[in-house]
Amino acid sequence: MTAEKLQVAFTDILKAHQRISPYIHKTPVFKNSKINDLVHRELYFKAENLQKTGSFKARGALNAVLQLKEKQTNLKGVVTHSSGNHGQATAWAARTTGLQCSIVVPSYSPAVKMEAIKEYGAELVECGPLPTDRNAACEKIAAEKKYEMIPPFDHYHVIAGQGTIAVEFLEAVPNLDAILVPISGGGMIAGIAVAAKHIKPNIKVYAVEPEGKILEKSLRAEEMLWPNPPQYLNTIADGIRLQQTGHLTWPFLLQLVEKEVFTVNNEEIIKAMKFVFQRMKLVIEAASGAAVAAAMSDQLQKLDKKIQHIGVILCGGNVDIDKLPWF
Amino acid sequence: MTAEKLQVAFTDILKAHQRISPYIHKTPVFKNSKINDLVHRELYFKAENLQKTGSFKARGALNAVLQLKEKQTNLKGVVTHSSGNHGQATAWAARTTGLQCSIVVPSYSPAVKMEAIKEYGAELVECGPLPTDRNAACEKIAAEKKYEMIPPFDHYHVIAGQGTIAVEFLEAVPNLDAILVPISGGGMIAGIAVAAKHIKPNIKVYAVEPEGKILEKSLRAEEMLWPNPPQYLNTIADGIRLQQTGHLTWPFLLQLVEKEVFTVNNEEIIKAMKFVFQRMKLVIEAASGAAVAAAMSDQLQKLDKKIQHIGVILCGGNVDIDKLPWF
Repeated sequence: MTAEKLQVAFTDILKAHQRISPYIHKTPVFKNSKINDLVHRELYFKAENLQKTGSFKARGALNAVLQLKEKQTNLKGVVTHSSGNHGQATAWAARTTGLQCSIVVPSYSPAVKMEAIKEYGAELVECGPLPTDRNAACEKIAAEKKYEMIPPFDHYHVIAGQGTIAVEFLEAVPNLDAILVPISGGGMIAGIAVAAKHIKPNIKVYAVEPEGKILEKSLRAEEMLWPNPPQYLNTIADGIRLQQTGHLTWPFLLQLVEKEVFTVNNEEIIKAMKFVFQRMKLVIEAASGAAVAAAMSDQLQKLDKKIQHIGVILCGGNVDIDKLPWF
Repeated sequence: MTAEKLQVAFTDILKAHQRISPYIHKTPVFKNSKINDLVHRELYFKAENLQKTGSFKARGALNAVLQLKEKQTNLKGVVTHSSGNHGQATAWAARTTGLQCSIVVPSYSPAVKMEAIKEYGAELVECGPLPTDRNAACEKIAAEKKYEMIPPFDHYHVIAGQGTIAVEFLEAVPNLDAILVPISGGGMIAGIAVAAKHIKPNIKVYAVEPEGKILEKSLRAEEMLWPNPPQYLNTIADGIRLQQTGHLTWPFLLQLVEKEVFTVNNEEIIKAMKFVFQRMKLVIEAASGAAVAAAMSDQLQKLDKKIQHIGVILCGGNVDIDKLPWF
C-alpha cells in the first residue's frame, strides 16, 4: 500500500503560526516535581487551558478564518456547529477578525456554554439533537447568509492551526521524546504529529482516548472500523466524546501516530484532574485530564525507558466549576 | 515625627533575588480581557499560586534559610509554627538546602495540610490551640535541637524575600501604577512596597484585608490599635486571618503603603475566586481571591482614573479542592 500524500505540510503549520501568533497566547509549559517522582520520567505540560477561549481550538479556528479572509476579501461571516470549545473558538475568531458569526447548538446545551458563545458576540441558533440536524442547520445558514462553514476538525486549515502547538512545545522543550495528545476527531493530533515529526523525526506521538473509542483496533487494521453515523461516547470528557475520527484527519493518524493508544476511564480522568487542580493549581477540563491520566497510567510505566521526556497536552480548561466531577 | 529608618533596603531585596532565583519559579504574569472590560482598567496578575509550594511564602522562607546558612555553616535545622503556607515553605526551603526541619502545627490542623508538610520531609510536632502554645513549642525545639526559628513574617530576611515578587513584577510590567496586596502579618506587602517604591516612586501599594481587620484605622492613627494578644479573624481567607500586623513590618506599612485599605467580605472573595477558576483557569486560595475581589470592587472604581495599570498579587493556590467554598 502506498501512503497517501498528506495535505498539510510543516511549512503550512509555520505559516499558520505566523498568521495566528499576533492574536493567540504562546502558552506556558509547566513541570511538576511531584508527578515526575510518581512516574519516574520528566513530564512537560503545554497549558492550552490558558489559551484564548480556554482551549487549543482558538488556534485552528482562527487559522481557518484568516485563510478564508485572505482568499475572500468580501467574506461576511462564518458558521459552525458546536456548543463546546470549537463554538467558542469560532465565535472568538470571527470577532477578532471583524466577521459576523452564527453558532448552531443543540437546544439542550448547558446555559453556561451558550452564554460563553454569546459573550463573543455570535448569534446562537438552536437545533435538534442529531448530528444531521446540526449539519442541516449550518448549511441553511451558510446558504442564506453567505457565510462560510468552519468545521471543528476535518479541515486542513484547522489541522494546520492546531499543529502550531507542537512548534511552540518543541521550541520550549527540544528534547521531548514523546507527546500524549487527547483525541476526538483527530484535528489536534494530526497537526501536532506533522509538526513534531518534522522537527524531530524520532519523536513518538500517542493518542489518548476515553474508554469505548477503540481507536487502536482501527489503526492496526489501517481501516476506520467505526459504525456510521458517528456515535458519542459515554465519558465525562465531553471535549473528546466523538467516537469516530475525521476522514481528512485519518491518513495523518495512520502515517504519523503510534498504533499503541492510551485508553483511560472516568475514574482515572477524575483522579488526574484532581492532581492538576490540587498540585499544579491549574483548572483543566476532563479532556486534559485524560492526557494526564495517560501519563500516570501503568501503561506509561511499561514504555521503553528511553522515552524519558514526555509532553502532555492540557488541551482545555472549559469545565463548569459549579459542577466539578468529584463533587 | 521623624520616620524610622527601614531595616530592609532595595539592595537587600536584589541580593535576596540573586540568592533564591536558582530555586524558585519566576512566576508568570497573566492578563484577562474579560475582567479588564468589567473594571475599565488594565489588570495584571502575578501568579504566585504557581510558585514552589503553592505560595509566595517559598521566597521569604528560602531567603531566610539561605542567609542563616551563610552565617552559620554548621546549622543543623530550622523550626517554625504554621500549618499553612509558611509551614510548607519552610519545610521545602529546609529540604532544598539540606537542612532538617520541624514544623509545629495545632493538633486540629486539617490532614491535607499536615500531609503536604510531611511530603517535604519535615517532622510534624502537634501543639495546643493558642498562639502562645505554638511559640512555646517552637522555642523548646529550637533549644533542644539547636535549630533556628524562621518566623512567618516578622523577620527582615523574610520581608526581603517576599520583596522579590515586586522586582519580577515591575520587570514584566514596568508601567504598573498600583499593586493590590493581600495582608496578614504584613511581610509580603512590606517587601513589595520597598522594592516597588524604589523602582517606581509614584507607584501606589494598597493593602487588601478581610472584614474585621480594620487596618485603615491603625494606619491613619499611625498606631497599632489592635488588642493583644493577636486575634484571628472569622474569614474564609485562612492565609490572611491574623488581625494584627507584625511589629517589624509595621514601620514599612506606615511609611510606604497607602492609608486607604481595601476591605473585602467572604461573599466577594468567593465571587472573585470563581471568576479566576472559571475564566482564568487558575486555582487560587481565598487570600488570592481577596486581592481579585478588591480589583472588582466599587472602591476600585472610585480610584483616580490615572491609576490605570494595576497589579494584583495571586499570593497562593493552596485550597483543598475537595472543599471549595462555593460547594
